[in-house]
Amino acid sequence: MGAAPPAPPPRLGNLTGRARLLHAADAAELRARLPEADVLLVWDFLSDAVRDAWPGEGPRPRWVHTASAGVDRLMFPELVDSDTVLTNARGVFDQPIAEYVAALVLAMGKDLPRTLALQASREWRHRESQRIAGTRACVIGSGPIGHAITAQLAALGITTALVGRRARDGVHGPADLDRLLARADWVVCAAPLTEDTRGMFDARRFGVMQPSARFINVGRGQLVVESDLVDALHKRWIAGAALDVFEHEPLAADSPLWTAPGLLVSPHMSGDTVGWRDELGLQFLELYGLWESGRELTNVVDKKRGYVPGN
Amino acid sequence: MGAAPPAPPPRLGNLTGRARLLHAADAAELRARLPEADVLLVWDFLSDAVRDAWPGEGPRPRWVHTASAGVDRLMFPELVDSDTVLTNARGVFDQPIAEYVAALVLAMGKDLPRTLALQASREWRHRESQRIAGTRACVIGSGPIGHAITAQLAALGITTALVGRRARDGVHGPADLDRLLARADWVVCAAPLTEDTRGMFDARRFGVMQPSARFINVGRGQLVVESDLVDALHKRWIAGAALDVFEHEPLAADSPLWTAPGLLVSPHMSGDTVGWRDELGLQFLELYGLWESGRELTNVVDKKRGYVPGN
Repeated sequence: MGAAPPAPPPRLGNLTGRARLLHAADAAELRARLPEADVLLVWDFLSDAVRDAWPGEGPRPRWVHTASAGVDRLMFPELVDSDTVLTNARGVFDQPIAEYVAALVLAMGKDLPRTLALQASREWRHRESQRIAGTRACVIGSGPIGHAITAQLAALGITTALVGRRARDGVHGPADLDRLLARADWVVCAAPLTEDTRGMFDARRFGVMQPSARFINVGRGQLVVESDLVDALHKRWIAGAALDVFEHEPLAADSPLWTAPGLLVSPHMSGDTVGWRDELGLQFLELYGLWESGRELTNVVDKKRGYVPGN
Repeated sequence: MGAAPPAPPPRLGNLTGRARLLHAADAAELRARLPEADVLLVWDFLSDAVRDAWPGEGPRPRWVHTASAGVDRLMFPELVDSDTVLTNARGVFDQPIAEYVAALVLAMGKDLPRTLALQASREWRHRESQRIAGTRACVIGSGPIGHAITAQLAALGITTALVGRRARDGVHGPADLDRLLARADWVVCAAPLTEDTRGMFDARRFGVMQPSARFINVGRGQLVVESDLVDALHKRWIAGAALDVFEHEPLAADSPLWTAPGLLVSPHMSGDTVGWRDELGLQFLELYGLWESGRELTNVVDKKRGYVPGN
């Protein structure tokens, strides 16, 4: 989201007369207002303000909705152990992120970054590039985003294996991961950040991959041991990588990631297509309609697991 | 192909004992040897050497094969009007070029060139990008390459119209072109270069397109009036373009195309995936097998039309 405070949520005018809106622009305001709120919409999902402001005792929101797919910033014990219901933005980002991953795969396969660099120096240098159809991908994360990525890559003729927390129909379990990594031309990480997945892409896993493999992370930065990735790229253990998410965002100007060989850095934008804020606002309104009428909420996060369980 | 002479054709060792190979590295050698040859394999398809060396009278090759999809350099009257059979590399480039076009569409839609430029200056700047599914493309050129592009874009959820020389099932005729251009988010040119298509993308046609449209040329450079495209980009008549082919190749270092706003320049590489030279060599061997045994050749160019007629 960058360093600037995010724009306020759109579409909430639709709640006029139905809810009293308490806007909290910073942590202090949030702390002051949280005890009055029945419902909390977390718009700035990369902030730790909710954790810091969460009421120790007494009144607290009964429902928290985060305008994001990942819920890792909200997995603090006081919320996890409470009876507050947590929902997320499941669905909004699936297709955009799948397209973004396809863009990265094709750009790397067709050597577009080098083409752009050569254009900047007015150099005509013909190269051979990679045929994409028939290559293999391993997608880690079997939620709706991982499924959408798998379908999009399959549409490009890529043979794709999906890995989730447990083996089931069409999904490999963790026991298969290293074997699949060792065969993949493209390794795509779209897993939720949990205690099981934190740091899962480390030196050992980069060492298992093929020297021709490319690694893409559109999940959360903390899934990757960034220094190990930089090292693997310098040592040419893998051929390239693209990160859209980072341990610390925005990425510091002096980070070695900006200049690691074969690494493409983008500013956490994979899911954010034109109109995404409106979609997030509308999704919250739909959920609010359920809440208002006492019906069951959808997109409910299993707080013990750290994601919305699905098929 | 660049300025350097191309590497010699691979796989021709398979013809040992079946044919006498006469290699011609330059125009003078070609002129000396052409009258002795029954078969001519044109490996450097961007060269005018064949036209210049073609025998005026007397013995000449009965069969010419060009290791390219486009045959425009061979459409000179002495060959067109002769009974020499001309074949091309139909099929080899379809899927690679379709993937390359998908790479360009996604790169432009997801703003990758700007992401790479921002990375070079270590700037974190979040932007919204374009959702690709649901956009519209118009593909010009209804040969196998145009068909492959159409299928690949459709696999990305893009609504695609294909335009050919004549209307038929699944293909629009030229009468529909301007209307389709006016509705397209992506205009992709994969037409053969003929007297009908030369310069077809000119100021008038760029003026018909939407200001948000992007234009991609993977056909031949002469299909586009390059100065009109530069003008259209500077005036923001269209949002961007990508050229893989140029009127003069290699593109001169002082060409205004290198720096035209929103223009991506690549060095005629869209079809050239790893192994393409082998594939071209093998394709020639297959055709040679037909020739040798007196069977009918495939991939035969209609020399009056300037391409291989298909469905």
